[in-house]
Amino acid sequence: MRVTGIHHVAFAHEGGAATLPALTRLLGLEVAHVEEGDGFTERMLPAGECYLQLLEAGGPGVVRRFLDRRGPGLHHIAFTVPDLDGALAELRAEGVRLVDEAARPGGMGTRIAFIHPSAFGGLLVELVEEEPRAGGPGNGI
Amino acid sequence: MRVTGIHHVAFAHEGGAATLPALTRLLGLEVAHVEEGDGFTERMLPAGECYLQLLEAGGPGVVRRFLDRRGPGLHHIAFTVPDLDGALAELRAEGVRLVDEAARPGGMGTRIAFIHPSAFGGLLVELVEEEPRAGGPGNGI
Repeated sequence: MRVTGIHHVAFAHEGGAATLPALTRLLGLEVAHVEEGDGFTERMLPAGECYLQLLEAGGPGVVRRFLDRRGPGLHHIAFTVPDLDGALAELRAEGVRLVDEAARPGGMGTRIAFIHPSAFGGLLVELVEEEPRAGGPGNGI
Repeated sequence: MRVTGIHHVAFAHEGGAATLPALTRLLGLEVAHVEEGDGFTERMLPAGECYLQLLEAGGPGVVRRFLDRRGPGLHHIAFTVPDLDGALAELRAEGVRLVDEAARPGGMGTRIAFIHPSAFGGLLVELVEEEPRAGGPGNGI
């Protein structure tokens, strides 16, 4: 397997945090996409070929648990792979512990799977397979 | 100011952690550059247009303090800006708290400055001004 890029980097924060207005006002970043997750709101801010993903805690769930344990902080890194099913088969063959045994739908029409952070010494890694996009970051065509 | 991309994402880890061998073996990432910092070793692994930066704790310093407080984890995000001095002047004019009041030398011939995480609700942001590069990630020529 060879990852082809960083798809996004996720930052977990409380509702009402200064994060989004400050990123917009001070760095010129803008929200291109919003989705509701299980207990959180996910906002995607394009930066060049990648996204900064903001995960705002709502109800109970993975973002809430992360915030309770560690406070606001960077949550995971997502790498782009061209063939997610093949990547997961390779990882299973290597005996790697997966959070998602099979690909599942991610934001913006992607397919995703998380690898358990124990595989990388504490780094939570997501793999993302993108659908062909007509425009926007990461397309390059 | 408008950032033009994500330059790197930094992960802080202990010496001897499984992180680097696992990233190499399982994801196909490779170390393109190594530098010694103040109490840490910095390794840059290209992934598409960006880098994953590994910060391995050695002696006392910022990486050691981060690990003692939070354990291994993602440490900061670095955005590329075309004009770092201009960006810092804008931020100072906005009353933003800076870690580095002026640009200082970063890895690989860059100029860098950190913004205090209080500006973004706990997100530690680095700004990077790159020198023109003859090749490698982010060049695009």
